[in-house]
Amino acid sequence: MADFTPLDPHFADRVRENFNRQTMMHTIGAAMTRVEPGLVAIELPFRADLCQQNGFLHGGVVTMIADSACGYAASTLVPADQDVLAVEFKVNLLSPAVGDKLIAVGRVIRAGRTLTVCAAEVTAYTKDVNKVIAIMQGTVIQR
Amino acid sequence: MADFTPLDPHFADRVRENFNRQTMMHTIGAAMTRVEPGLVAIELPFRADLCQQNGFLHGGVVTMIADSACGYAASTLVPADQDVLAVEFKVNLLSPAVGDKLIAVGRVIRAGRTLTVCAAEVTAYTKDVNKVIAIMQGTVIQR
Amino acid sequence: MADFTPLDPHFADRVRENFNRQTMMHTIGAAMTRVEPGLVAIELPFRADLCQQNGFLHGGVVTMIADSACGYAASTLVPADQDVLAVEFKVNLLSPAVGDKLIAVGRVIRAGRTLTVCAAEVTAYTKDVNKVIAIMQGTVIQR
Amino acid sequence: MADFTPLDPHFADRVRENFNRQTMMHTIGAAMTRVEPGLVAIELPFRADLCQQNGFLHGGVVTMIADSACGYAASTLVPADQDVLAVEFKVNLLSPAVGDKLIAVGRVIRAGRTLTVCAAEVTAYTKDVNKVIAIMQGTVIQR
Repeated sequence: MADFTPLDPHFADRVRENFNRQTMMHTIGAAMTRVEPGLVAIELPFRADLCQQNGFLHGGVVTMIADSACGYAASTLVPADQDVLAVEFKVNLLSPAVGDKLIAVGRVIRAGRTLTVCAAEVTAYTKDVNKVIAIMQGTVIQR
Repeated sequence: MADFTPLDPHFADRVRENFNRQTMMHTIGAAMTRVEPGLVAIELPFRADLCQQNGFLHGGVVTMIADSACGYAASTLVPADQDVLAVEFKVNLLSPAVGDKLIAVGRVIRAGRTLTVCAAEVTAYTKDVNKVIAIMQGTVIQR
Repeated sequence: MADFTPLDPHFADRVRENFNRQTMMHTIGAAMTRVEPGLVAIELPFRADLCQQNGFLHGGVVTMIADSACGYAASTLVPADQDVLAVEFKVNLLSPAVGDKLIAVGRVIRAGRTLTVCAAEVTAYTKDVNKVIAIMQGTVIQR
Repeated sequence: MADFTPLDPHFADRVRENFNRQTMMHTIGAAMTRVEPGLVAIELPFRADLCQQNGFLHGGVVTMIADSACGYAASTLVPADQDVLAVEFKVNLLSPAVGDKLIAVGRVIRAGRTLTVCAAEVTAYTKDVNKVIAIMQGTVIQR
């Protein structure tokens, strides 16, 4: 993993403030729990109203927090006046999303002038077991 | 597009009933508006609590309805006693998700014995304009 | 499918000339058989030295012509002094690549200022049967 | 990264023998340089007949060795009488493929009963510099 130096010394505040404006994250009860240069973690406690037909967390909500973790990881490295948008991503759902909570960790793989390539891992936590349940690879554009 | 003959004559009822058990779809206010052999449409009216930082619908929610449309399109073609799970998908977000509502149309591209490959298109509708804002390609497994 | 108007009236000559500089395409024996605004077709006759372990054409060579078809489809729409590069793509391999020849057709889905989103379909041809064996979705950058 | 125990004690010989039957790998001059449980490396020396229009190695050939590395990484873990096929993959091309040689390292992320999820990294080597130029995420099916 590369070592990144943020262009904006206040990147953490900026990223958290931006996250707070995402009403979708409030609706699902997600929280941003780590903001570091090129890395962001988003945590989602289990809730019965976020499930698919078998009572597992919906694959779409797993993807949603992974996507947000990637986008904000990219955002930590852009200048203060720039925003980022997800261009595309691909997710492999490895196992059903069961557990007390999910944590998506997004990391910058390569930060370019226009595009940033990111990867994320989503881990499901229960009392005794942690299990990686999804991986993502995607691209973010600055503007 | 191939012409598909469902194995289960009651596929439409089965698929709608399964959709109704997805609490996540209720939470975002999505409705299944078409169920045909190898094709499902899911509609999502705009809501201010489903947005990203600029007031557009969140890319994650766009992806979520495309993923569900793909999964249920595959589900129309499986035997009555089988369920499907998304294995992986990839989405390209073409334009910001602005509009009065989104409709995701998922289609089966190839139905195999174990895996079904699907594609989806998400269109944003406003009074005068329709615009494709996202495309998805993905794989579903039967079990 | 959108209707595209090329910025460069000589796009077809430019694209064919560029294709001829790809030594990889000569090595596998691929030919560019259609060049239209936002659409390119690349044809690959079967050859025993392009196979995987079972004597089918290698998934990598299927992907290679789909990738080239997408890139050149995007290239038809850029100004005369711009080149394009593939940023990312995703392919689903639907069936083994058996047949006398493959044809990959790449199409522009959305042409933006910086990025172009494309899709491709690869069809295998034998005397009596045509079969879509792979689909691709990807992103190209102009520069 | 998980620790994998191969079901077939002769996995390395089996995998190398299978690789040798891929005529495409001979055509491009690729060699399998590591075969470990859940991990395979494939090396490709630069050759002027494998290039795109600017004299870089073609994105399709980068993808081809990553795809093979993933497939064979999965193959190390299957029973002796099973073969594997790539179902789908997604690649992000991070930088132009310049250098004396490329090495693609494919790893198993999750080995399931039917599907194996893999990831690959392709690194370009020159005298003084190593650079990751592409990452892949994909799915392989056993049969």
